[in-house]
Amino acid sequence: MMLRCGTMVDHLETEPLSRAWNFSAGPAAIPEAVLKRAQSELLDWNGSGASVMELSHRGKPFMELAARAEADLRDLMSIPDGYRVLFLQGGATQHFAQIPMNLTPEGGSADYIVTGHWGEKAVREAAPYVTARVAGSSVDANYLQLPARESWDLDPGASYVHITTNETIHGVEMRDIPDVGDVPLVADMSSDILSAPVDVSRFGLIYAGAQKNIGPSGLVVMIVRDDLLKRPGRPMAKIFRYAEHAANDSMLNTPNTWGWYLAGLTFQWLKEQGGLAAMGERNRIKADTLYAAIDGSDGYYRAPIAHAARSRMNVPFTIHEPALDAVFVKESGDAGLLALKGHKALGGLRASLYNAVPLEAVEALTAFMRDFANRHC
Amino acid sequence: MMLRCGTMVDHLETEPLSRAWNFSAGPAAIPEAVLKRAQSELLDWNGSGASVMELSHRGKPFMELAARAEADLRDLMSIPDGYRVLFLQGGATQHFAQIPMNLTPEGGSADYIVTGHWGEKAVREAAPYVTARVAGSSVDANYLQLPARESWDLDPGASYVHITTNETIHGVEMRDIPDVGDVPLVADMSSDILSAPVDVSRFGLIYAGAQKNIGPSGLVVMIVRDDLLKRPGRPMAKIFRYAEHAANDSMLNTPNTWGWYLAGLTFQWLKEQGGLAAMGERNRIKADTLYAAIDGSDGYYRAPIAHAARSRMNVPFTIHEPALDAVFVKESGDAGLLALKGHKALGGLRASLYNAVPLEAVEALTAFMRDFANRHC
Repeated sequence: MMLRCGTMVDHLETEPLSRAWNFSAGPAAIPEAVLKRAQSELLDWNGSGASVMELSHRGKPFMELAARAEADLRDLMSIPDGYRVLFLQGGATQHFAQIPMNLTPEGGSADYIVTGHWGEKAVREAAPYVTARVAGSSVDANYLQLPARESWDLDPGASYVHITTNETIHGVEMRDIPDVGDVPLVADMSSDILSAPVDVSRFGLIYAGAQKNIGPSGLVVMIVRDDLLKRPGRPMAKIFRYAEHAANDSMLNTPNTWGWYLAGLTFQWLKEQGGLAAMGERNRIKADTLYAAIDGSDGYYRAPIAHAARSRMNVPFTIHEPALDAVFVKESGDAGLLALKGHKALGGLRASLYNAVPLEAVEALTAFMRDFANRHC
Repeated sequence: MMLRCGTMVDHLETEPLSRAWNFSAGPAAIPEAVLKRAQSELLDWNGSGASVMELSHRGKPFMELAARAEADLRDLMSIPDGYRVLFLQGGATQHFAQIPMNLTPEGGSADYIVTGHWGEKAVREAAPYVTARVAGSSVDANYLQLPARESWDLDPGASYVHITTNETIHGVEMRDIPDVGDVPLVADMSSDILSAPVDVSRFGLIYAGAQKNIGPSGLVVMIVRDDLLKRPGRPMAKIFRYAEHAANDSMLNTPNTWGWYLAGLTFQWLKEQGGLAAMGERNRIKADTLYAAIDGSDGYYRAPIAHAARSRMNVPFTIHEPALDAVFVKESGDAGLLALKGHKALGGLRASLYNAVPLEAVEALTAFMRDFANRHC
């Protein structure tokens, strides 16, 4: 709907909500069904007489939970044989450093395609361990678009090519998996994993912090091709070596058992929702709904990212009058729409539309946006 | 009470318990009051309309939670000024490696006092980063006692001296803080932190995996003296540098927010219990009760550790007839006493008596032990 100042719009629901619509960039919304299940069994899981958090990770009940979570993820993502799934700690940031420790020899090099804040950080954290070549970047375009594949200067001798499939802060998403030849493609999918089907066989390694589309913070899920686990890497403690984690089924030391449990519940929920094809379609509709409200606002709201690069997961936008940002954040919060403030690096506003954010939330947001524009002409 | 085969004992309560008595070595029992609080606010924390897991760690409400948890820990442990408290990830095992990365220069050395499995592992994980000298060990005594202080061969030029104050598997506890001169003392307190008052000023660095006396797995609490944060360490990614975590109030990247939250609730619970002096007294009574039942069993049960080294937190014991171990584990489990199987490295039985295990649980265990001995003469 076209929005003009002064247009009358239906008034917003003002009943207090017990749960808000949560647009947080991460830690982010978790499916309510998952939270309710966790709540119901928080003191007595699986008839054990104890919380899942109070049980040994090496006991049979938790081992079964862990195996089922992996099996469900394999099923959801159609992970081929020849890939291992790891449940790790440290956040994606730690793995910015740990990936080159594992995949490159001393003196080796790797190529990075930098499309925003997180790609920059991946380069910085990798630098002590590898010659981290920026082989493609859209920094000169202020990360408002993706660097064209033709502009990438890839080194065929690189140990890997690193991409960030979705930039949480800049709101830029790389939907097409780039062809990088025989060099393994490594992807930080922290903020778009499980948001749509993806061809895992195109990647050497996929990793994701859990706190956007998987579960609570403090867990990293990694999918890694067997041959990469056989690379010698460099001298380091066992605890940093992915091959050791794989050989120990991610129980080289005590894992984040609560995170693993909630990830497993989320994977079950995703299967109940129809899997990733269904989620992909829902996420497309959610993003289209919000971008349409922005683009159709006659310039009241603006989404700065080039259309082809717009993220379905994180939608940064601005108001034509920046002084209204703070008003928008305050009033939307009062209306039960949480965490719409933009990242401090960019300012403005941002709505994150992860899997656990339903279309209903997006519709509540667009209704609020129309009402807000009407009230603050 | 002296126990002899054939003695009649009161029969055990056979009503089903909704919550079992949990003697798990870790992940371990969490105070029921903490779990109930977490359960009650799992979907709506602090009036936010969202779970604490769904909120940004950089938002004001979580920052306040985080600061309060630190303040309560400082209060509980009387942590002096000049020490920083960090909330990290990776388990103690990762910090076996990360501590030498931070505290020693290239080519440096550190002294390790090895009193069991975890001390051995600390040495192995440190070895890629430092000359890890075993300056004292009780391996020749099968870790059944502590190596006498006089036997330690300390190097005054070491970057630090590392001890494991409580060995979770071997059940050996170092209650007296050793004098190691001017070299900073570094202590893995994973399994006895917060179990009694401790003079923090005697240590350079204290660290503990949370999953015994603090909260769920996936969180490490570290207390580190400021001067150690100023050591240059060696070239490494920022994410591995404690000084960076300190400079960013443990929010260099997204922390384990759920773990931090539950740790905070546990610290509040400990204060309500009367603090560490009260806990220390309770833990003494609990351990005395169990050791007395073992020692008073006329050899039916045996605790192998030398009296002066016996852990108050983890009590390994055996039955005179090893074939009864499996029967004991099965029957105790059926009676609502969880996780009494010994670690696979040692066999036998083990009861962990962390803060969240009440005296009532220990009394239920000793009553069961008497009954078991009576039935399986």
